[in-house]
Amino acid sequence: MKIAVLGGDGFCGWPTSLHLSNLGHEIHIIDNLSRRWIDTELGVQSLTPMDSIQERCRIWKETSGEQIHFHLIDLAKEYYRLRDWLSENRPDAVIHFAEQRAAPYSMISDRHKIYTVDNNINATHNLLVAMVETGLDAHLVHLGTMGVYGYSTVGAPIPEGYLDVSIDTPGGSKGMEILYPTRPGSVYHMTKSLDQILFQFYAQNDGVRVTDLHQGIVWGTNTDQTKRHPQLVNRFDYDGDYGTVLNRFLAQAAIDYPLTVHGTGGQTRAFIHIQDTVRCIELALKDAPAKGERVKIFNQMTETHRVRDLAELVAKMTGARIAYLPNPRKEAPENELIVKNDNFLGLGLDPITLQEGLLEEVVEIAKKFAHRVDRKRVPCVSAWTRDLASRVERDPEGKRLKSVS
Amino acid sequence: MKIAVLGGDGFCGWPTSLHLSNLGHEIHIIDNLSRRWIDTELGVQSLTPMDSIQERCRIWKETSGEQIHFHLIDLAKEYYRLRDWLSENRPDAVIHFAEQRAAPYSMISDRHKIYTVDNNINATHNLLVAMVETGLDAHLVHLGTMGVYGYSTVGAPIPEGYLDVSIDTPGGSKGMEILYPTRPGSVYHMTKSLDQILFQFYAQNDGVRVTDLHQGIVWGTNTDQTKRHPQLVNRFDYDGDYGTVLNRFLAQAAIDYPLTVHGTGGQTRAFIHIQDTVRCIELALKDAPAKGERVKIFNQMTETHRVRDLAELVAKMTGARIAYLPNPRKEAPENELIVKNDNFLGLGLDPITLQEGLLEEVVEIAKKFAHRVDRKRVPCVSAWTRDLASRVERDPEGKRLKSVS
Repeated sequence: MKIAVLGGDGFCGWPTSLHLSNLGHEIHIIDNLSRRWIDTELGVQSLTPMDSIQERCRIWKETSGEQIHFHLIDLAKEYYRLRDWLSENRPDAVIHFAEQRAAPYSMISDRHKIYTVDNNINATHNLLVAMVETGLDAHLVHLGTMGVYGYSTVGAPIPEGYLDVSIDTPGGSKGMEILYPTRPGSVYHMTKSLDQILFQFYAQNDGVRVTDLHQGIVWGTNTDQTKRHPQLVNRFDYDGDYGTVLNRFLAQAAIDYPLTVHGTGGQTRAFIHIQDTVRCIELALKDAPAKGERVKIFNQMTETHRVRDLAELVAKMTGARIAYLPNPRKEAPENELIVKNDNFLGLGLDPITLQEGLLEEVVEIAKKFAHRVDRKRVPCVSAWTRDLASRVERDPEGKRLKSVS
Repeated sequence: MKIAVLGGDGFCGWPTSLHLSNLGHEIHIIDNLSRRWIDTELGVQSLTPMDSIQERCRIWKETSGEQIHFHLIDLAKEYYRLRDWLSENRPDAVIHFAEQRAAPYSMISDRHKIYTVDNNINATHNLLVAMVETGLDAHLVHLGTMGVYGYSTVGAPIPEGYLDVSIDTPGGSKGMEILYPTRPGSVYHMTKSLDQILFQFYAQNDGVRVTDLHQGIVWGTNTDQTKRHPQLVNRFDYDGDYGTVLNRFLAQAAIDYPLTVHGTGGQTRAFIHIQDTVRCIELALKDAPAKGERVKIFNQMTETHRVRDLAELVAKMTGARIAYLPNPRKEAPENELIVKNDNFLGLGLDPITLQEGLLEEVVEIAKKFAHRVDRKRVPCVSAWTRDLASRVERDPEGKRLKSVS
């Protein structure tokens, strides 16, 4: 297949591009490289030393013999270039990772809120419009998030996308299938909730074939392909904005920094290893909806855990201390989360468990590159509201941490 | 109260500004005048001769002694000017009409789809962010639309915003209150569906106090205040993009043009007179939610009718013919629509009925300004999909109409 990977330079996009290229697909990365610009803005860098996208593609060609093409296009700002590219290249599938993906980043300031909504909504909408306009019947696979459910997780197993509700009508009770109600907890998560409505509309109005993957929190760094050459390594974010919780714990452990748990750590989250992410994308590609079918929604996760349990697991494995800090997020202090992932299991996904992958990650990545950590970038200081901001101390390391173990 | 009316130069915004100014409020219109630019783009004009906003404000001052202030700010593009304005002026209430409001316009082409989403979502989101950023605890009253429900009207009375659903959990059935599911039928309606999620998030995260008015189709032209001077007249759109169905029938009757019904005319729609619109805004302002309360949602409509029944009513009153044309919209050919509007009735709204208002409208507006109609602009030619576009004939008047009465 000819596949366009939008956002193919990012944390999920790059290993996906390699994985699909390795399977023999013709891969075209479309990216505006915004994630690299944000590194520059925040003054942070990937724990793993990361080459330019052009260099990555060159190394991949040398290593595998396969060509990955790179095109610098800004989906949100360059609609007409996107449309022309799709029209000329007519990919069979389009994988859409091209959104600002960090909840804390989306809450830093008014500028970051506005950027996240403007970028994410226009990127997704421009893509849908361009597909309709060019009459391109490609399968659109989008990376969404489990986080759209936020406050609407009431302890029931979250189904894959839809909920049957019953409505009282004058002629008796009538069933209606609706998108499972979302209740996002950050501006970033909100944009993925908006995306759902865009997909529903364009599937219904124009028959666009969409699969929306509600992904859990990704952990891990490398996949079979990124391991093939040091310069193919995936990025690893440990900072308070982009670092995902488990990867942050690993980096913290590696530099003898307390594991920072926000609030009680009673938040239950869904997780998936990056190797399973790329495998899920492959599986989703094979299971495209038919034209006119409703949006397919898969829960792309393999395990759920409470944050404090993860901290304890990493602490036990590495000897790290745990520090309980004020929570900068506005969220329920504790929540249950049960998630159905029958779709991917049915398609043959064989999950990597935390148990098998964690230790390798600590040794191969976190310890190996620990010297590249800037300790000042470790804390989460992006607060969800003004009130919360005043409670999160902004002092460096030692002073702002209330260590308990 | 000091009130900012965003989009105060438009069809609903202008009479609302006058109505509230007349009640003694300090009115600040903020508008980018985009609706006037769209007139220019489409080569159409209001049936009623409409002065510049500056001239309208001058005439209002002469007529009433009251000052309405006008500020040229583009909400979607000039966030920082908006934020500074709110910070300096600190209005008690903000009424938000500032969105592209025509479904057919939103479907003309890729450019129009993109414009509608980019403009409407960024306008609403920028406003919310600016209110949070400036710590402005104003009551935000937003004009939404009944059209967000679209395909999710299953013949049950549509409640005012929320639906209780029951979810099966391991510990038994659990109730959850959700936003009534939307299923918008055009890009324009979709933006209002997205707005709902923005409001829900900012009410929950930051305590922004929001009232969202799900308005029906507005008919009529003048209100008590716009009648006070010929230069205060409200706009009246008769064209295929911006003309609302009933006003279009009136204009068609006045120029001896067949009343154009699309499809079977079995679509049931909700209606409200413009005089009731401005009264509803006044009532909504008095009933602000408390800080931390969920978004208040009112259905702002007074009657429901099938489109073909309206055509027959106008035909009987005026002797006009009815022409049944192919439907350029993708929608159910027939639908039931029952709408609850207990909130406004409870607050004292005494609706103007079609029966009382229609004839005056025909004589005072449609016949009086019939010489200003450009007959070429009457048909709806904006098709929802490529397939539908090929079925809607684009020949002028006589040839494209299949008259049946």
